[in-house]
Amino acid sequence: MDLGTRIEAAMERAFELTCTHAPPRLAEALRHAVFPGGARIRPRLCLAVSVACGEDEPRLGDAAAAALEFIHCASLVHDDLPCFDDAVLRRGRPSLHREFGEDLALLAGDGLIVTAFEQLARQPTAHAARLAELLAIIARASGPAEGIVAGQAWESEDRVDLERYHRSKSAALFRAATSCGAIAAGSPVAPWAACGELLGEAYQVADDLADRIGDCATLGKPICRDRTLGRPSAVSEHGLLGALAHLDRLSLQARDSIPPCADRRSLVELFEFVVARLCPPAMRHAVERVLACEREPDSDSALSA
Amino acid sequence: MDLGTRIEAAMERAFELTCTHAPPRLAEALRHAVFPGGARIRPRLCLAVSVACGEDEPRLGDAAAAALEFIHCASLVHDDLPCFDDAVLRRGRPSLHREFGEDLALLAGDGLIVTAFEQLARQPTAHAARLAELLAIIARASGPAEGIVAGQAWESEDRVDLERYHRSKSAALFRAATSCGAIAAGSPVAPWAACGELLGEAYQVADDLADRIGDCATLGKPICRDRTLGRPSAVSEHGLLGALAHLDRLSLQARDSIPPCADRRSLVELFEFVVARLCPPAMRHAVERVLACEREPDSDSALSA
Repeated sequence: MDLGTRIEAAMERAFELTCTHAPPRLAEALRHAVFPGGARIRPRLCLAVSVACGEDEPRLGDAAAAALEFIHCASLVHDDLPCFDDAVLRRGRPSLHREFGEDLALLAGDGLIVTAFEQLARQPTAHAARLAELLAIIARASGPAEGIVAGQAWESEDRVDLERYHRSKSAALFRAATSCGAIAAGSPVAPWAACGELLGEAYQVADDLADRIGDCATLGKPICRDRTLGRPSAVSEHGLLGALAHLDRLSLQARDSIPPCADRRSLVELFEFVVARLCPPAMRHAVERVLACEREPDSDSALSA
Repeated sequence: MDLGTRIEAAMERAFELTCTHAPPRLAEALRHAVFPGGARIRPRLCLAVSVACGEDEPRLGDAAAAALEFIHCASLVHDDLPCFDDAVLRRGRPSLHREFGEDLALLAGDGLIVTAFEQLARQPTAHAARLAELLAIIARASGPAEGIVAGQAWESEDRVDLERYHRSKSAALFRAATSCGAIAAGSPVAPWAACGELLGEAYQVADDLADRIGDCATLGKPICRDRTLGRPSAVSEHGLLGALAHLDRLSLQARDSIPPCADRRSLVELFEFVVARLCPPAMRHAVERVLACEREPDSDSALSA
């Protein structure tokens, strides 16, 4: 079974355990939030690492992968709400609160966070200690101190700790993804945590670049939100060219830090896929076009709007 | 150490693990949501049962008790938001979104849900299997199928399954509280689950009565929300007198179903305290006054407003 098929099967199993049995409109909202998904990058990383580490209990990796994606989906639903991005679109469809109302969007996010932990905690396993470690790692990457809740909260602070902001906003869940793959397979976690974190930092820079450069059709969501909302970003910090160079550097570091393992080539390809997906060649060309415009201010009007 | 002191110490330890290290404004919002608390009824039930079952690892009970209260606090914060109750007051102070804004109130709720699971998952224990069971029980009582997320979601449905609504809105977390006490102590869970559920049902009926009868000063929150918002309630189902009789019946059943255990008398007293706290003698008198008014419609104006 290829990874994509395995992930969707794991997601459906996890969803069936609780979400299907929710009150009817909430169940529909939960499904809208989770299916069809995006690239499922976090569960893909988790399972790829689990396989590379010679997993002995695949269902444990499956449940951890589903938990990571549920947390990610929950964060998208809550970030889209009017008190944050007030996003109209998500993955090319109406955002959850536009389709189901703010009340159900709020509850769907809450329900997905809880389900992430519940379906993992209920996974039968011969390795209860691994289960507790998986739950703790995913919670830490989601939580208010150094997880995605913290990442979002930094945007409401007057003074932003940029390093903590970037690490918690994206890198934490990537770090958790590769860590969970190792834990599920009973392997040492430190080297896998490090390469996941580097990849997550690269992803955050690519996301910042996309926000400045990308187009709505490609991303399936409104763009220039960071600039509109005055958020800190790698672009405002390093400039366009600096951010692109930073992205390339982080991508290389992430790839080079993948530990020796079975079929390391596949993991290298997955890392390259992750970066290329958010920063495709067209975006690199767009950076060059913007820079050319900035050198010749008269032709800048179309891009500075 | 009495239960109240033990609970606050456990809550502070759990809070310190993650919430204290959140971005500054979020950390402040999290503290506002958790301290000072209300009666801490759910953790009190959990620890009282754990003691009654002869707990062998008190820190496990402490962490479960803190998790239950964090989930409860999270539900209060999210229920108070404008898309639900739009509450101005909570525990006699400004509600979280009135004090910190909707964005931080949303994140504080999310952060408390995650923290509930994280601090429990990170609890060192010689009983990893008990830990997984505690996490699963608390998640189920919080979640979208039969937990408090489901309870809130039933209020957004056109057709309400009244039994599921009542069970998930309050009874689920009470059932989890007594269950967790038993699990933390390594005791059989079924009899403790049953008496917790009965107490939770009684609590829900008392809450419905308080909403119709109570006064704002006693509850520290706006009243008559159920009626204003057209929500299903025990009062609209059974009438005032019927609801009061139902409450008394459930309270007795709950008390009588407490399994044989060490110092059963203390548990009986705790159950009586829980019911009396939400349905004090003054409320019983108020029910009688309302009924008298209903028999003499001319004097009804002050109460039907």
